[in-house]
Amino acid sequence: MQLVTEAETRRFADPELCMEAVRECFIALARGTAQLNPIVIGKGQVAGATFSVKSGWSTDHGVAGVKIGAYWPGNELAGLPRHNSTIFLIDQQTGRIATAMEAAGLNGLRTAAADAIATDLLARLDSETLSVIGSGNQAQFELQMLLRVRPQIRKVLIGVRDPRRAGNLLQFLADRYKVAAEVVDIETACRNADILVTATPSRAPLVEAGWVRPGTHISAMGADQAGKQELSIALLKMARLFADYPAQSIVVGEFQHVAEDVASGSVGITAIGEVLLGQTKGRVSADEITIFDSSGVALQDLLVAQRVLAARDVSSIGKSNNAI
Amino acid sequence: MQLVTEAETRRFADPELCMEAVRECFIALARGTAQLNPIVIGKGQVAGATFSVKSGWSTDHGVAGVKIGAYWPGNELAGLPRHNSTIFLIDQQTGRIATAMEAAGLNGLRTAAADAIATDLLARLDSETLSVIGSGNQAQFELQMLLRVRPQIRKVLIGVRDPRRAGNLLQFLADRYKVAAEVVDIETACRNADILVTATPSRAPLVEAGWVRPGTHISAMGADQAGKQELSIALLKMARLFADYPAQSIVVGEFQHVAEDVASGSVGITAIGEVLLGQTKGRVSADEITIFDSSGVALQDLLVAQRVLAARDVSSIGKSNNAI
Repeated sequence: MQLVTEAETRRFADPELCMEAVRECFIALARGTAQLNPIVIGKGQVAGATFSVKSGWSTDHGVAGVKIGAYWPGNELAGLPRHNSTIFLIDQQTGRIATAMEAAGLNGLRTAAADAIATDLLARLDSETLSVIGSGNQAQFELQMLLRVRPQIRKVLIGVRDPRRAGNLLQFLADRYKVAAEVVDIETACRNADILVTATPSRAPLVEAGWVRPGTHISAMGADQAGKQELSIALLKMARLFADYPAQSIVVGEFQHVAEDVASGSVGITAIGEVLLGQTKGRVSADEITIFDSSGVALQDLLVAQRVLAARDVSSIGKSNNAI
Repeated sequence: MQLVTEAETRRFADPELCMEAVRECFIALARGTAQLNPIVIGKGQVAGATFSVKSGWSTDHGVAGVKIGAYWPGNELAGLPRHNSTIFLIDQQTGRIATAMEAAGLNGLRTAAADAIATDLLARLDSETLSVIGSGNQAQFELQMLLRVRPQIRKVLIGVRDPRRAGNLLQFLADRYKVAAEVVDIETACRNADILVTATPSRAPLVEAGWVRPGTHISAMGADQAGKQELSIALLKMARLFADYPAQSIVVGEFQHVAEDVASGSVGITAIGEVLLGQTKGRVSADEITIFDSSGVALQDLLVAQRVLAARDVSSIGKSNNAI
C-alpha cells in the first residue's frame, strides 16, 4: 500500500483535474456503467463526531474503492478542519489496497467541482451576484470553483449567522479576485442571489421559498446524511431538481425531504449526468429556479484520486528526465 | 496516517491476543455497547472479485473504524492468497485515519479465534475427531486455533473435493502437531466429526443433515455474503444456533437461509456473547448439535488492530530501553 500524504495530494489536485474527474463520474453514473453502495455512517467518541463510508466501482475506469469521510465538529476549537477524508483505491489485479490518499483538501475541491459543473449547466449566463451560505472551509472551495465557471460574477455575498466568522473568506476573495464582497445575513444573501450555494451542516431549512428570486440557480452541498437539510420543502417544490445521483440524494441528500413525492411521481429529479450527455435539458427558461443537490458520491473520489496519481506519476517522470 | 505492513502485523498478531480481542468483541456486542453498520459489498474488475466494507465503533473501547476485505479468486493462479484485509482505525480526537493495518494474516487468525471461542464454549470436552471442510488458507488458521482450545483432539480429517489440494494442510499438521491426519471426502469428514469446521466460499450446502452425528459442534465460517451457504437448511433446523452477531448472521451469514423462521420465532439464534456473559447456556446435553455461525464483524478487526498496535508499542519501548 502506498500512502499519499495530504501535502502531496494537495500538490497535484488542481481545479481542472477535479472538474474533469467529476464530469466523467456524472456521465458514468448516468450511463449506468458505475455502481455505488449505500453510504454507511458511524459515530466517533466525541460529541457530534460522525464518519461516513462511501464505496463504489466503475468497470469503464477500472477502479474500485472506498472513501472514509469524518466530521469532527470539535476540531474547530483546536484550529483543525472539521472535515477529513481519505480515499482508498483497490488494486484491480490482487484486491489489495493499492493506495491510501489523504484527501481533506481534495474532497473540498471535488465537492466544489461538482457544484461548479452543475452551476455551469444550470445557472443563467448573465448571473451577476453569487451568494454563499456558510463560512467554513468548504465555502472557500465553492467560491473558487464557481468563480471559475462564472468569471462574469460581479458581487459575492457571504450569508452567515455570525459575521465574525466570515473574515477569512473576505480576505481570501480580496487576495485573489476583483469581485465586490460583502458579509450579510442569510436572508439578504438569498434575496439578492443569481446563484446561491449552501455549504453548511444544517439540520433545519436555512433558505425560505419566498427569499429566492425567479431565475436563481441553487447548489445545495451540505446534506449528506439522513436528517440534514438546508432548503425549505416549499422551495424544492417550486423548482426543477437535479442531483449528482438521485437514488442517493433521496436517502441522504437534500431531496430526502421530498422522497415521498419522488416515489409518488409528483416530484422529479434529473441526474446531472443526463444533462451532460444531452439526454435531458438543463435550464429551459430565464425565470425558473433550478436546484442541484450534491450528496457526494464515492466514484467522484475514486476518479479524482486516479487522476492525482496520474499527475504525480507524470511529474516524477518529468523529474527523473531533468535529473538525467 | 501510519501504515502497518503485513509483515509487521504478523509479527505482533499472536493467537492469544486475537482470542482476547474477539472475546471482548462478543461481550461488547451482547451488552450493546458497540455498534456495527450494515456490510456493503462491491465488485472488482476481474471475474468473481468482490470486496466488503465493514465498519463499527465501540464507546467502551474508544475505537471506531473500517475493515476492507477482498476476495480475488484468481489470485490463487498467481500464488497469492485469495483473501486480503486492511483495517483502518480512526483517531478519536480528530477523525483522521490514524492507522492503516495490512491484515490478511490477522484476519485469518481473528476469524479462527472466533470459531475457537465458540467451539470452546459449545463442543463436548470429550471431542476426539476434528474435521475441517476446505483446504484454503483459512483452514490452516482454523486448525491452529481449534487445536489450541481442544488439545485433546486425536484425529483431524480434512474433507475436500480434490485431495490434491490438501497437501499443504497435511504438511502443516505433520510439522506442528502430533494428531493423526487424513484427507477424505466431505461426507466422510462430516460423518466422523465431533467438531466440524466449514471454511469454504460455497454457495450451496456442502453438509447434509444426515451426515452429522448427535453431539457434534459445527463452526461455519464461510458465509459472509448474501447467497453463500455451507450447511443444509434441515441441519440448521435440527440444531441449536449461535452467532457472532445474529442481526448480521441472518443477512449475510449462514443463518440467512433460516431468516424467515427467525423472524417468525420458530428458530432462535443466541449471540455467543450471551454465553460468554453467562446469560444463556451453551451446550446443555451431550447429544445436541450446536452450530456457531461466524459472519465476521468489524469490531473484531478494530479490537485486534488496537491490540496489535499496543503489542508493537510495548515492543518498541523494550527496544529503546535496550538501546540505552
